[in-house]
Amino acid sequence: MIVESGAIMFGDFTLTSGKKSNYYINIKKAITKPEILKEIAIEMSKKIENEYIAGIELGSVPIAVAVSLEIMREYVIVRKEQKSHGTGSLIEGEIKKNSKYVVIEDVITTGSSVLKAVNAIRSEGGIVERVICVVDREEGGEENLKNYNVKLDPLLKVSELLKRKF
Amino acid sequence: MIVESGAIMFGDFTLTSGKKSNYYINIKKAITKPEILKEIAIEMSKKIENEYIAGIELGSVPIAVAVSLEIMREYVIVRKEQKSHGTGSLIEGEIKKNSKYVVIEDVITTGSSVLKAVNAIRSEGGIVERVICVVDREEGGEENLKNYNVKLDPLLKVSELLKRKF
Repeated sequence: MIVESGAIMFGDFTLTSGKKSNYYINIKKAITKPEILKEIAIEMSKKIENEYIAGIELGSVPIAVAVSLEIMREYVIVRKEQKSHGTGSLIEGEIKKNSKYVVIEDVITTGSSVLKAVNAIRSEGGIVERVICVVDREEGGEENLKNYNVKLDPLLKVSELLKRKF
Repeated sequence: MIVESGAIMFGDFTLTSGKKSNYYINIKKAITKPEILKEIAIEMSKKIENEYIAGIELGSVPIAVAVSLEIMREYVIVRKEQKSHGTGSLIEGEIKKNSKYVVIEDVITTGSSVLKAVNAIRSEGGIVERVICVVDREEGGEENLKNYNVKLDPLLKVSELLKRKF
């Protein structure tokens, strides 16, 4: 479904990390279609244990919300930057201390964005042991997360996606 | 449900617009609970006509996603700022030219944030005639939107919320 949605593009791209890439996974092209989003939510739900859900601004929020609605369990949103107005918190929603949170991500490259979210949740007293993503680009994310005692569990690896015919 | 969730707080707050307020609606405290989010999505779905859905970064994305899944119709996300990497677009998802979009917002004060989203969608060829929000703070938003030929349709007006016992 992701390949058919046209979410995988070839060309010259600069990723969030600054790295160059000859392909880009525009996952939002897939997850703005409710039938694909629903399917992702169903598959992720099978992997979720006794954990609350955490999405990361902005990319994985729709996925975290879809999973939350699929299993009717609370979620939090981890912001990339503190907002200056309102309540001034980095995390939207309530972190329940000593409760487990699984971080949902769309696409993981080196895992640095997701590690910031893991640290934010841990600093507010939540426990994070696992990250579930839609696509693992297989560029070191799994190893980097492992160094912080976080296990990466992807729905798809990019090597599987790229060997599909386009 | 919103009142019971504790999403309405009293104190000294500075809103996004820079205005001071003696109350703050932390709508994320409500919409991170799937049972409330689902209820909001059901009520909004009743109001949606032959329109695609548009959410605004970051606040209304969960609501737009919940409505999208409720009626299985595509959505777009309007970013507040262009991102520097990847595809470089202000709107995530596809604007279908000459198709109608209803903008979903969480809380509307003066309507200036929502007007930016309306303009972004119109500049890419989409038609916007309506905004649906969870709470109208009744501080000029309805009139400001009307000046741009946009009708505001709130689920709740703040005057209704504030007269509830806390």
